Amino acid sequence: MTEELSIVAENKCFGGWHKRYTHRSTALNCAMTFAVFLPPDAAEGAPVPAVYWLSGLTCTEENFMQKAGAMRVAADLGLALVAPDTSPRGDDVPDDPAGGWDFGKGAGFYVDATEAPWSRHYRMHDYVVNELPALVERHFPVTGGRAISGHSMGGHGALVCALRNPGRYVSVSAFAPIANPSAVPWGEKALGHLLGADRARWREWDASALLAEAREHLPTLIDQGDRDTFLETQLRPEVLKHAAEAAGYPVTLRMQPGYDHSYYFIATFIEDHLRHHAKALGAAG
Amino acid sequence: MTEELSIVAENKCFGGWHKRYTHRSTALNCAMTFAVFLPPDAAEGAPVPAVYWLSGLTCTEENFMQKAGAMRVAADLGLALVAPDTSPRGDDVPDDPAGGWDFGKGAGFYVDATEAPWSRHYRMHDYVVNELPALVERHFPVTGGRAISGHSMGGHGALVCALRNPGRYVSVSAFAPIANPSAVPWGEKALGHLLGADRARWREWDASALLAEAREHLPTLIDQGDRDTFLETQLRPEVLKHAAEAAGYPVTLRMQPGYDHSYYFIATFIEDHLRHHAKALGAAG
Repeated sequence: MTEELSIVAENKCFGGWHKRYTHRSTALNCAMTFAVFLPPDAAEGAPVPAVYWLSGLTCTEENFMQKAGAMRVAADLGLALVAPDTSPRGDDVPDDPAGGWDFGKGAGFYVDATEAPWSRHYRMHDYVVNELPALVERHFPVTGGRAISGHSMGGHGALVCALRNPGRYVSVSAFAPIANPSAVPWGEKALGHLLGADRARWREWDASALLAEAREHLPTLIDQGDRDTFLETQLRPEVLKHAAEAAGYPVTLRMQPGYDHSYYFIATFIEDHLRHHAKALGAAG
Repeated sequence: MTEELSIVAENKCFGGWHKRYTHRSTALNCAMTFAVFLPPDAAEGAPVPAVYWLSGLTCTEENFMQKAGAMRVAADLGLALVAPDTSPRGDDVPDDPAGGWDFGKGAGFYVDATEAPWSRHYRMHDYVVNELPALVERHFPVTGGRAISGHSMGGHGALVCALRNPGRYVSVSAFAPIANPSAVPWGEKALGHLLGADRARWREWDASALLAEAREHLPTLIDQGDRDTFLETQLRPEVLKHAAEAAGYPVTLRMQPGYDHSYYFIATFIEDHLRHHAKALGAAG
């Protein structure tokens, strides 16, 4: 490994390797940590495609790797998993002036900020779409085959990354995404800070708005628990569903009875999502 | 649910339910929290057997449920999972006078203390073997079929619970157990406090010593990573293996190349352990 990356931890898991690295991000102007899982094939040097995972509010690069049970399936399917942190980090990085957990550090919202003081660091979209994949593809035995998924704020991030960047991903999925961020409290707070007061600009980062104009239609799987306490106030998958139906966009939205917003919900259905991505990526299976 | 138990959290997971409860423990003289997973069968009221899981140093009842990926397999096999906390808790409970993480709260060592001030609360063996199963079997649709497993300090606990209580469990397993606690630093520290200075009494709580005199021989599966940093100083599975060979006790010890002491190691092999227990418990599969 070159000096561009410093390893933080490594653990053998399901015959492959879970590893965490730090590096200096130029997009975010700070040190960042990310996690990667390399399945047995890749650990032996054979290139594999990658599924990028974007976590939700308050998470880091660790939650998904520890709690989702994804590595068993990724090892079986021959998929790499890449999980970034959820915001820029460090003492220089501004945080929520209100001291909340729903915006700022741990809650970067996966957009590229245009407003001071946020625009110097809060460029998570650029980081996730450009800098991180280039870094990963330079250092690890992964192909340029990319899929993207995420949870809650990260479900919003995954959908927006795919919708804004035709040709960059072959499939997308989400668990309980913030599907219409420009019209819910979490999104209004974050986008108001990061993009300014003009709500018209928020729609450029809202999956339900972007779907209507999408040139590329990717296979899209969304799972949503019907006992998720954030369903009606913050998530609003039905807005996305109606937009998809109007645009003829192939979104499969599954309402899962009894499930909540937790990683127990994600763990239950992650295998379906990874198989959805493996099919699009042409992974071994 | 009666007033004996108070629910803390519940999450649907793999068609079953993960739940956490608090209750007043008479064995431990304090309030305790435990976690249970009820597979789909049990959630519908059909009694199922239970696998008890004992976690390691610094853990609570949450680590195993969040990180081991066990619920997928337990749902499939029709097994309940029960995970207690790792020590008595609360302001009244004495803690390590040296301020360490390897003894005291979060590190009760699954023995019944005989020495002051520990003996008033540190009776985790009695709690795990008697009070908790009685409570679980009174309140949930579980049969009296019991198996036991654990990790590190909890692997020691699982082996000792099984070896000291013939007829109580049908199978036992462990990940990286402290296999010879009376002869390693973690065990010397804890047993010295809890049982006093007489080392002869420590051997009554040492799996490698208990094996030699066991009347009942249970199917026993042990996994141990060969890159576990605690292997030679604290764990010593080879002492247990030699004792088992001398006693004709059926212990399967698998050295797993490249694996460390983490939950990534446990997640990799938990399915084998639950299938080992399901077979002994006569669970559906």
